[in-house]
Formats: sequence, C-alpha cells, structure tokens
Amino acid sequence: MKSNLLSNIVNPADLRLLKEEQLTEVAQELRQFIIDVVSVKEGHLGASLGVVELTIALHYVFNTPEDLLVWDVGHQAYGHKILTERRENFHTNRQIGGISGFPKRSESVYDTFGVGHSSTSISAALGMAIASQLKGDFNKQHIAVIGDASIASGMAFEGLNHAGVTDANLLVILNDNAIGIDPSVGALKQYLTAVKEGKNPKKNNMIKSLNFDYSGPIDGHDLPNLIKELNRLKNIKGPKFLHIVTTKGKGLQQAEENQVKYHAPGKFDASTGELLLKSEENLPPKYQDVFGLTILDLAKKNEKIIGITPAMPSGSSLKFMMDEIPERAFDVGIAEQHAVTLAAGMATQGMIVYCNIYSTFLQRAYDQVIHDVALQNLPVIFCLDRAGLVGEDGATHHGVFDIAYLRAIPNMIICAPINEIALQNILYTAQLGLNHPIAIRYPRGRGVLPKWEVENFGHYEKIKIGEANCLKNGTKIAVLSTGSIGNNVIEALNECSNSNEIAHYDFLFIKPLDNNTLHSVFSNFKSIITIEEATINGGFGSAVLEFAATNNYKNDIQILGIPDVFIEHGTVNQLQQLCKIDVKSLVNLFSNDSK
Amino acid sequence: MKSNLLSNIVNPADLRLLKEEQLTEVAQELRQFIIDVVSVKEGHLGASLGVVELTIALHYVFNTPEDLLVWDVGHQAYGHKILTERRENFHTNRQIGGISGFPKRSESVYDTFGVGHSSTSISAALGMAIASQLKGDFNKQHIAVIGDASIASGMAFEGLNHAGVTDANLLVILNDNAIGIDPSVGALKQYLTAVKEGKNPKKNNMIKSLNFDYSGPIDGHDLPNLIKELNRLKNIKGPKFLHIVTTKGKGLQQAEENQVKYHAPGKFDASTGELLLKSEENLPPKYQDVFGLTILDLAKKNEKIIGITPAMPSGSSLKFMMDEIPERAFDVGIAEQHAVTLAAGMATQGMIVYCNIYSTFLQRAYDQVIHDVALQNLPVIFCLDRAGLVGEDGATHHGVFDIAYLRAIPNMIICAPINEIALQNILYTAQLGLNHPIAIRYPRGRGVLPKWEVENFGHYEKIKIGEANCLKNGTKIAVLSTGSIGNNVIEALNECSNSNEIAHYDFLFIKPLDNNTLHSVFSNFKSIITIEEATINGGFGSAVLEFAATNNYKNDIQILGIPDVFIEHGTVNQLQQLCKIDVKSLVNLFSNDSK
Repeated sequence: MKSNLLSNIVNPADLRLLKEEQLTEVAQELRQFIIDVVSVKEGHLGASLGVVELTIALHYVFNTPEDLLVWDVGHQAYGHKILTERRENFHTNRQIGGISGFPKRSESVYDTFGVGHSSTSISAALGMAIASQLKGDFNKQHIAVIGDASIASGMAFEGLNHAGVTDANLLVILNDNAIGIDPSVGALKQYLTAVKEGKNPKKNNMIKSLNFDYSGPIDGHDLPNLIKELNRLKNIKGPKFLHIVTTKGKGLQQAEENQVKYHAPGKFDASTGELLLKSEENLPPKYQDVFGLTILDLAKKNEKIIGITPAMPSGSSLKFMMDEIPERAFDVGIAEQHAVTLAAGMATQGMIVYCNIYSTFLQRAYDQVIHDVALQNLPVIFCLDRAGLVGEDGATHHGVFDIAYLRAIPNMIICAPINEIALQNILYTAQLGLNHPIAIRYPRGRGVLPKWEVENFGHYEKIKIGEANCLKNGTKIAVLSTGSIGNNVIEALNECSNSNEIAHYDFLFIKPLDNNTLHSVFSNFKSIITIEEATINGGFGSAVLEFAATNNYKNDIQILGIPDVFIEHGTVNQLQQLCKIDVKSLVNLFSNDSK
Repeated sequence: MKSNLLSNIVNPADLRLLKEEQLTEVAQELRQFIIDVVSVKEGHLGASLGVVELTIALHYVFNTPEDLLVWDVGHQAYGHKILTERRENFHTNRQIGGISGFPKRSESVYDTFGVGHSSTSISAALGMAIASQLKGDFNKQHIAVIGDASIASGMAFEGLNHAGVTDANLLVILNDNAIGIDPSVGALKQYLTAVKEGKNPKKNNMIKSLNFDYSGPIDGHDLPNLIKELNRLKNIKGPKFLHIVTTKGKGLQQAEENQVKYHAPGKFDASTGELLLKSEENLPPKYQDVFGLTILDLAKKNEKIIGITPAMPSGSSLKFMMDEIPERAFDVGIAEQHAVTLAAGMATQGMIVYCNIYSTFLQRAYDQVIHDVALQNLPVIFCLDRAGLVGEDGATHHGVFDIAYLRAIPNMIICAPINEIALQNILYTAQLGLNHPIAIRYPRGRGVLPKWEVENFGHYEKIKIGEANCLKNGTKIAVLSTGSIGNNVIEALNECSNSNEIAHYDFLFIKPLDNNTLHSVFSNFKSIITIEEATINGGFGSAVLEFAATNNYKNDIQILGIPDVFIEHGTVNQLQQLCKIDVKSLVNLFSNDSK
C-alpha cells in the first residue's frame, strides 16, 4: 500500500495543511492503515473504521489539542491515535509497554480524558467546558463523541440533563450506528431509528426537550458535509448536539456485514477480510460458554430462571439463552444499575435471576448490589465475568476490585470457582435456593478442561456453601487459593522439587470462609500463603488475616494478589508476572519459602 | 382531633369499603394524623403531606397488596404506612425497634420493595411486572411513584428506556412538586416546568419519545380526578406514565412555604406549624457547617476552587458557597455518577474540585471514582459526608462501607478527621495540591468543639499526609482509632481507672498508613486494638492486619467496628452500643483487656 498523504501526517497540524478535497484520500489511507495493522496485531476494528471520516473532520475543523476532544469508550479512537503522533507506535497497540487500546491522558495531550468504560464523555467534556468558562476562555470547544449504545446509559443522561441548563461550549456528537458491541436496544434506540427514518423528526425530540441545539441526522461518511456542519457548530456557543449516522466496520465488507464478529475480530486477511481462525480443537472451553451453556440447560428445566446482561450477550455467552428462550433472557443495554435492580424486582416475585455483569462493570452498580439486593437479602445470582486480569484491555477493564468491594457487604456469598466443573456446579447449586445473594467470579477466556463439554457438561453436583477443598497435602506450608489462579498453584507444585512440603487448599468460597478448614490449616502449618487474582487490599487474604486475628493465631501469613497499583495492558501471563502470581514466580516462591 | 374514618381503617380493604365521597374526609384525617405524630416524634413531613390524596387514590383504586406499589425513596410513604396496618405503630417511626422511616419488605407485604436511595422504583417495578407476565398474570398492575428530582437520575432513565420496549404492566407516576430535599435542577426539570405551564405539551415530549402512554399533567390533590384517571389507567396494558402535580407540605402552611426546612423539620407545634427549635448555643458546630464555611473561605482566596453536590446543598452546607459564589458551586441533582466525572473533567483543566457526596451515595459512583478519577490520578477532593452510622435513617443510609471499598483503589488517599480542627485542616491541605485524589470522611451531625467557629475557624495548618498522632501514652495496650469515633476512645479513657495502661493513637489517614508509627506501636505494645465506624471487613483494622502480616508482627490485634450485618435505625449512640463501639462498651473492654 502506498501511503502518500498519511505518512506525512504526524499530528493534526499537518492534517490542517491539506486542502479539503485531499481529505477523502486521507480517509482511504487511514482506513487501510487501520485494517493493515489490526489484521496482524489484533484489536478493535469495526468502531474505528466507522468513524474515519468523523475523526479526520474533527481534527481538521477543530484546533486540537487546544479544543478538547473526548471519545466515549474509546474503541473507536484508533484513527485518532494514528493522526495524533502515534502512527509509528500503532503496531504496539495493546501490547505490554506499547500504547493503550483506549485514549489515555498519560499517553498524549490529544487524549484529554482516559476512557474504557462507557458513557463518561459528556460529563467529562462538560467539566472541561465549565472549567474553560471559569478561566475566561469562551472560545475553546469541548467535544464528546458518543455512540448510540453509550448514550442510552443513565450516566450519559445525567450529563445531558446538566449540560442543558448551562451555557458551556459543549458539542455532543452522537455517532449513531445502531450497535455497541452487540446491537443497541431500548426505547431511545427505537426513537433514534425513527428519527433516522424521518418518522419522528419534528415532534418529541428528546434531545431538544433537554435544551440542546440539535442538528442532524447527517451521513457521517460524507466528509464535505461533516466538515461544513462542524464548521457551523464551531461558532455556536453553548450546548450543541449533532446526530450523525455511520456504519460500523465501514470500508471492509465483512466487517460491515458481521458487525458483532468484527468488533474485535482477531487476526484476519487484510485484503479479503477473511478471519484467520485458530483451530479450537482440543482447547478447553471459555468460562463464558460454560456459563452460557449451563444457564441455558438449567433454564430449560426450570421456568423461573431468568438471565440478564447489560449489553454483553455475545461477550457473556448469554446469547445462547437469548436465542433459545428469548422471553427469559434480557439484554437491557449499557445499564448496569438498572440490570441489578431489575433483577432484584424479579427476585421479589420468586424468579431465579442470573445477572451476568463483567466484574469491572459491576462497579457501576455497587450501590444497587448493597441497597436493592443484599440489604433485602434477595437471592440474586451475580455472575461476575472477566474477574481478575483481563489482558490487553488493560487498566480500565481488569476485574480486580470485586472481592474487596463485595466482601464488606452483609448477606453476600462470594465465590470463585477454580475450573469449569466448579463453575457449572455452583451455577447449578445457586438455583436450588440459597436464601442469599451470591457473586460468582470467573475469568475471561478459557478454562483448563479440554473435554469439559463432552465429559462434564450437565453432570451437576450440589456444592456445600462455604466449604473449602484440600487439593493436596503437604508438610510445611499451606497455600490457600481462591478461583482459577489456583491452577497456577497446581502447575507450580507440579514443577517444584519440594512439592511434598506444600499443601494446597482451594477456597471456592471467599465468603463465608470455611472456618473449620482454616482452624485445621492454622493448627497444622506454621506458614500460610494466600493467593487470589484480586487486590491484596481488602481481599481474600485480608479475610484470612481477619480470621487469624479473631482467633489469635500467630502463623506467618503471606498474601499474594494484585498490588496497590493500577495494572496496565499486556497478556494475562505477562501481567501475572508483574504481580508475581504467574507459575514461574510461584515455583520460585515455593522453593525459597520452604528452605 | 376526632378521627372517625381513619381510626376504622386497618388496611386498604377497609378503605375500599368507603364511598368515594368520603375519601376527602379520609385525606383530611390522614394529613392531620401525620402532622400530629411527626410534630412530636420527628421524621420526614413535607413529602408525605404532598401525596396524601395520591396515597388514598392508589390504595382505593388498585388491589394492593396484589397489585404491587413501589415508592421511590420512600420519604413520602408515611400515609401509605398508616393505611397499611401500621397506624398504631406509627409513633415508633424511626426509633430503635420501631418501624422504619422507609418502606421495607420485612415490615409489611404492602412494602413491596425496600427503598431509601432514590430512582430505583422504575427498575424494581418493571422487574416485578416482567415476572408477573412470565407467571402468566396479565392483569396485575405494577406501580412506581417517583418524584421529579429522582426521575432525573440516570438510573431512572435506564428503567424507562427498558420499560418502553416491553409490554409489561407498568404504571410510572411522576409526582412532580419541583423539589427533592432541595429544589430540583436540570434540563428535565425545566422541561417539566414548561409542560406544566402548557408551553411545551405537544412537541418534544421526552416521555412519549420513550414509547410511554403519557397522560397529564393533572392536579395531584384533586381526589376525584385522580381516582378517575387511575381507574382509566388500571385497564390499559403495557407501560403507562401519569404526570401529576402536587405541593410538597400540602395542608400545613409553613411547610408549603418553606419546603426545604419542612422536609424533615424536627419537632414543631402541630396546630400552628411553628418549629420548636432547640437552643444551639454552646453546641459544637455540625461537621457539615465546618465543611461549608471552610470551603467558602478557601474558595474566596483561591479562584480555582469548585464545589459540587448531587442534590444536597442544604444537607452538605455547600449552600453557603452556592449563595456567595454561585458560579463555582454546583448542585447537579441526584446524579452522583455525573458529579464525580464532571469533577474529574474539571480537574484535568487544573481546577481544585471538592466533590461532596454522602458516603452511602458515593456507592452510586464507585466506578467513576476508580475509572475516571483514581486511574488518571486526578486530584479530586471527595468529601464523604455522613460517613459512619447516621442514626434514624437506618440501614439504607449508614455510610459504613466506604473505607473498605475505597481502600482497594490505587492512588487514593483516605482520611477521617477526628474533630472539627482536623477536618478544617485537611480541607485546607487538600487544596495546596496533593497530586492524588483524596477522600475525607466525616460523620453526620455535630463535632466536639463548641467554640470552633470563634476559636479555630480559619486558623489553617498544613497536615502532613500519612502521619498519625499519638494522643496519649500508655503502658500496655495501644488503641488505634480513625475518625470521629476516636472521641469515644478519649471519653472512655477519661472514665477508665486503668487509663495509664492504654495509649491512644489517632490515625487521620487510613491510606497511606503511617508505617513508622505502626512499627513503633507494634514494637512497644503486645496488644493492639483498632477502632473505626466502618465495616470490620476490609476496613482500617484490616489494613493494620495487612501491615502486621507483611512485617511479620505477631501482636494480639483486636478489630472494632461495624460487624458483618446491616445495622438498622436508632440513635447513633444506640447503634454504637449494638456494635460495641460506644463509650460504655469501650470502658468495659479497656478495663477487662488490661487485666
């Protein structure tokens, strides 16, 4: 590929030297550049392809970085990164030590606000706009680019509701492609569709009802028109709203046709668009599929079972149930708060609700877990997907706080299955009736049992709540693990020459703790090591310390887990190394500790 | 007062035996009953007076408790409680062992969903409505009554957005009185005002844009019309929305005229409405006023200082700054998520933002604290009002989880001042530039220094971050306290005969911990007691245990704080007794422990 124009653009100042009629060529080159790199290096594809024209138009019309541009979520910001001094580093995207897959303040002055979670852009840009006003700068523009899935989240509404009564220089651009990671849902989405189809343009305009100067919808791939409209808006003071319509995956046929799959497609052929799928034979199942297949199976047998996901039907594999039992499987959109309280409302009527939320996104519904579920002791079943380190998505997405933030809540059962069988069995046990809410945390990605689906699927066993398991005896040290990180312990012990000295206990339950097993452990081992893929502060190890203090045990206790820093992006193994909870670090620790 | 009709109503079945024309009399009696009891027993007044007619109409028209009625927040549910089997217990409202000030499932079948925090009713009622559908019950109605302040919160929008694409039997009643605890704000509020004034009734109806069958606005004090409209809506399937207009405090002139003060007025004369104010002479200031006066003083001297409150200008005392420097003091409405990310956006532009949120409500913005503030290490100053036990508001409102949920977050400084001087000094120090976010937790109500305003106000001292203070030496035991509960320790030590044996350290900082002081404490005292007004699980004591484990100390450590149960309502002192952290319990503990 010959890149004539793009290769001369280091930052937007270079872009602005071009004539407007050259920008279509830039768009073509930028789109191809994204495809070329992502096809090899992997990452998020469709969102960035959809906003190539918008990205160029924004940096062409506005005086970035003086004008402040906030990308909501940030999946769509690859073009932005490439045009803002990171073209040459773009091949390091999402790799350890490389650039982040999301805008990030510490990476560039053009990244005005770090993102990753959705629906923050309006609030952040409004804060910037008010600050500019207070500093006497009335010309600076502040732009939030937000998708139609993200704007349906409550937080975005709160931002609009405030902005509408200010005279801050805020431009909200709704990038309406009718899809987030999965297709958008909800009444607002229906409304936007009606607007696009010209059915409802004049009356009941929700955005106008919130005091915004609304314009659109316009074609977000029509560069001249976009530039014209942005130039017009640039000179209007106060809150403004531009509705543009784009196609996710624009410019790569397969990505346009299969938008869910090409959101983050893995490696593919840059010229044909064909996915380069790795063979999945003999691989263990994804924990997500263990959840998705199990809940479907259980739901077929029990009419009271309901599944809820806030906008992650594909990611969570709730889609299996949505396909087969749509009346009991709900995608409520990016609305974690609503998802949790909806589940609570259903639970009051005797329904058995599996509320599947990524660990990092349950942070959005922390109050609802406390106030609407746990306080009323409603037996909602929280499935905390992507608990622990998530890898390349990095700091915004690691699910490492959940044990600490849930452990403080009375009535909660908290558990972390070590493998696919344990996950399946606790999902089964939960619907037998626990009389308490339960949180089941499990990681992103694959388990450890290649033949699970053939050998184990559907062979349910009831689990005794609060019971830990001795996986291996030992003479000197007891290792207490919780969750899938226990597999690192198993592997490490397989590699240790002194493994006979080391006992291993699997604590499926973080709360309630198995006090009987702990008494036995503390009585029989001088030295105890706890390990979890979650923050050391306030986590499982901390619970063990509280047990020891209460019972006046004086054993040596070492707590392994995520240290008190934000962990960046990289492979899970690389990040585990940073935290010293990878297999090799454990082998070293076990070998030294028993000397 | 002669109560002829009301005294014969035990539950709504009795109400439904009356003729419609008798209901006006019931309304009069119910209103008077509320006034009579609340004037003596205290509690929330204005909200319940405003919905007397609505309460009667709902229970008259609908078949409660078969039809399911959810009150948002629940301040307005006194009439509901009185009409649903709790008239005779109503005098125990908010007292320990008595009925709760909010609807509560464990109290009555008529309380279908426990509330206290705002904006949950639509999600909860929708969950119930969907559950009814799935159970084949297509006639049952599910009603959410929500105020105009609460409906502006993002969570309510999420509920509406989902409900609008269902055919569930949900009736949302917007009780529009233009005020929450303080007057409502935001674009939606302006829109509703326009609707009420007939300016905007036909076009841009936001509720209609979300697919609801909208009716209103109608007069919420016109019983016959209300009943007629509810009867009409009762027979309409699917999601419906009724907009009613009421007056908060209706029927008591002073309460209508001074709605903020009569939200929860304390004791007053039932016949004249006059407040029975206690003398405030010689009382210590409220921590709220220490915050409010200090931030105003600091803001006058530093133009970068900004104050934010989500809907609590009076409660937080940010109103002082809002009155004098309105351009830098923001009430953003019930929008904690937005408040935090708005603060983050402002902080990126160099503003010094005090974001004042009740501890229990910061649970609503937990993700924003992590993702938008701490991850970017933005120096937002969180003022966590009403941290610890809040007393009569009870389980929904205690601010006891904050230490545990904040301690897991990297980059956060967490502190709890022991008194007014410490609070003032940390508020002062924070604006000197900490390069980190900080959370400052302090309790509801009065401090301990009656002459603070005269003797201490404005005498700022810079605090060294992370430094603990030895308040008293001792020979045997070290007590480590954090926050205002330290005053209980001081009092207890004054009463102990063996106080010479007991040292007392004030840990202003929970994070970072003062490791130097801890090393000294652990080296010099065999026995250590930690005390905090926050959950034992994961809290300050837990941090001390983590320090001890890391450094291999084997001292005896006893952790005092809030145990792993939800604490109900009562006076703060009564609740501290339950948790064994009141002065008397401490005296007993200290006396026994040193034997």
